[in-house]
Amino acid sequence: MSVDGPSHKPVHGPDHPQSVGHVVARKEVFFDGSEPLRLEAGGSLGPVEIEYETYGELSSRRDNAVFICHALTGDAHAAGWDAGPGGPLRDYRRDKPGWWDDVIGPGKPIDTRRFFVICANVVGSCYGSTGPMSVNPATGRPYGLSFPVVTVGDWARLHMMLLDRLGIDALYAAIGGSVGGQQALEMALGWPDRVRRLIVLSAGRRITAQGLGFNSVARHSIINDPYFNGGDYYGGEPPLMGLAAARMLAHITYLSEDSMGLKFGRRFQDKSGPEFTLTGVEFEVESYLKHQGESFVRRYDANSYLYITRAMDYYDAAVWGEGDLVKAAARIQARTLAVSFSSDWLFPPELCRELVSALCRAGRPATYVDIPSRYGHDAFLVETETVSRLIHSFLSN
Amino acid sequence: MSVDGPSHKPVHGPDHPQSVGHVVARKEVFFDGSEPLRLEAGGSLGPVEIEYETYGELSSRRDNAVFICHALTGDAHAAGWDAGPGGPLRDYRRDKPGWWDDVIGPGKPIDTRRFFVICANVVGSCYGSTGPMSVNPATGRPYGLSFPVVTVGDWARLHMMLLDRLGIDALYAAIGGSVGGQQALEMALGWPDRVRRLIVLSAGRRITAQGLGFNSVARHSIINDPYFNGGDYYGGEPPLMGLAAARMLAHITYLSEDSMGLKFGRRFQDKSGPEFTLTGVEFEVESYLKHQGESFVRRYDANSYLYITRAMDYYDAAVWGEGDLVKAAARIQARTLAVSFSSDWLFPPELCRELVSALCRAGRPATYVDIPSRYGHDAFLVETETVSRLIHSFLSN
Repeated sequence: MSVDGPSHKPVHGPDHPQSVGHVVARKEVFFDGSEPLRLEAGGSLGPVEIEYETYGELSSRRDNAVFICHALTGDAHAAGWDAGPGGPLRDYRRDKPGWWDDVIGPGKPIDTRRFFVICANVVGSCYGSTGPMSVNPATGRPYGLSFPVVTVGDWARLHMMLLDRLGIDALYAAIGGSVGGQQALEMALGWPDRVRRLIVLSAGRRITAQGLGFNSVARHSIINDPYFNGGDYYGGEPPLMGLAAARMLAHITYLSEDSMGLKFGRRFQDKSGPEFTLTGVEFEVESYLKHQGESFVRRYDANSYLYITRAMDYYDAAVWGEGDLVKAAARIQARTLAVSFSSDWLFPPELCRELVSALCRAGRPATYVDIPSRYGHDAFLVETETVSRLIHSFLSN
Repeated sequence: MSVDGPSHKPVHGPDHPQSVGHVVARKEVFFDGSEPLRLEAGGSLGPVEIEYETYGELSSRRDNAVFICHALTGDAHAAGWDAGPGGPLRDYRRDKPGWWDDVIGPGKPIDTRRFFVICANVVGSCYGSTGPMSVNPATGRPYGLSFPVVTVGDWARLHMMLLDRLGIDALYAAIGGSVGGQQALEMALGWPDRVRRLIVLSAGRRITAQGLGFNSVARHSIINDPYFNGGDYYGGEPPLMGLAAARMLAHITYLSEDSMGLKFGRRFQDKSGPEFTLTGVEFEVESYLKHQGESFVRRYDANSYLYITRAMDYYDAAVWGEGDLVKAAARIQARTLAVSFSSDWLFPPELCRELVSALCRAGRPATYVDIPSRYGHDAFLVETETVSRLIHSFLSN
């Protein structure tokens, strides 16, 4: 493996036997009657569209559904090749398979010959589910900051309603990494009888004070971008610079000091020594972060970044136990697999251990694995081989 | 001790017997003839003013001078109470003693009854030494980005010239923390026969790739602030939001996850629960970072932040050994005390150990102490008691 991940990571084209092939996302609409959705934070929203993709076939007993929760800036396009209509923020995914295509497909760890796999986009996002970019039917204009605050609990509830529509009473498994792991956890806490197995990767009960701090700087950058205009920028230039700063910062937190050292060290970008420029790029790591910022702003909406980081901020699984995580964990009926990565400092292994320890103290079956890895928080998407083995074995059991 | 530092940290008023009292910074001017200073990065600068303060008396043998190097946003006002003329960026220091007043004074660890203590501001700063805010005599306008790139080597050289003016051949000790530690190291490397003792706190050979990344995001925020105007903002509104973002981010790196957890945790600011605001303050940690950003922009110049972080980026002590740190360390004639702090992740203990290990391998006398501390990078200014004991004992020896 290189620090970029496995050096010969196979990319399966849509015609490969292990690919789910071409996929087109679908939508379900909720709360399109007179009653809107009442949100956890007190606001209301309606109608609510949920975009989702499915891979594989639902069994006649409807007992093989695996629900995948995406991370902060993810979407419903977890596997296969997007054959949907595209769009300004979606074109980035044209030339590559879904974000977890390594793991989902025929003969892959989440085997679509056996499982009916569902991945749905969260509300607040800019990838098809209703969010601040969506048109508010009451005004005919994009919601912007008039979009209500949404929470991980709201995401989980709406996705449970999607499962109702699909005729699925209980999930074989709910799986997610990072804030997606928190959503999977929330599904198991809020609907214990509907989640049989839970896999939480690189996540925990809640983010740390440091995590709150990073999110706060990211939002500061977006909100104070001169093009932000109180979130009402859809007719003109969006707050690209603020959103790029937020993404650059986030990328530092996704890597580890060790992996940044190995990947970039202090090497200069395309030159052997410094040019002594204040405002230009000198080091490879600067070039990498700049590139990450620039490519992200072409595919993501700044308002969504505000809403989704706030949902991360607010989430605390212990709310289900009135602040007591053991009491909360006692609600869970799923068997749990929790996986942390040694160099993850956004969701450090301690957070994962805290969750597993609460499950054990509550007498709930839980397996915990801390994977020694250099890749930091990104490891859950990079350490494919190890993660695949764990998921495959846990789902087979 | 609380996480804010010793809970009853004594503040000595100017009349206290352990205070150096009221102090007024002085200036020396260099390169005011026809020849400008040739800088390491290739530019030139002249005239060059250096602002400095001194405490205590130079001995008749001129052998008791201790030079203090300040950190990133520091200044020459290390001890006592500022009785200078003030000014827009300086008024913040009116109501408190110098930044290292805990350590410098009569009967304090750096005892001004015994030592002649000098602290000088670096070029590129906004605190009295020539920097981007200074008026370029060639144009009659502030330099802005026409100010040349300066390096830690330039800082050290100019401060050595200041010592020449003061009639000091050799320093009893050069002392600094963070990038100030790097400057002290540079003085010992570049002028080995002029530095008898070297104390390096929370520093090392160079910053990490992660450190380069954080500096790069900070500069991105400043440069892309709409008020930045290519650095030419002195007549109008400065890029306050970009500079605030840079400072907020820096403050996260100065603390540790542990100390942020203890200091703020996930407590709400002045309320028991969330108000569900996207753009307002919810958590104490947000309020703290916002306050740090807002107060910083009143006392610091954004262009200086660009120049000084770039100097940090470029610095690598191993240049003195053509990339070989042991070869570089062999130049040093000083006895060295190097101190790291267990939770410092901006200059992690490994960096300090790498330096000490190089000194040892080069056969140079070095003492290394890693202090178990929760305070992160800030520890060198917070763990006063331990640091004081170490400095006192090392200087007495």
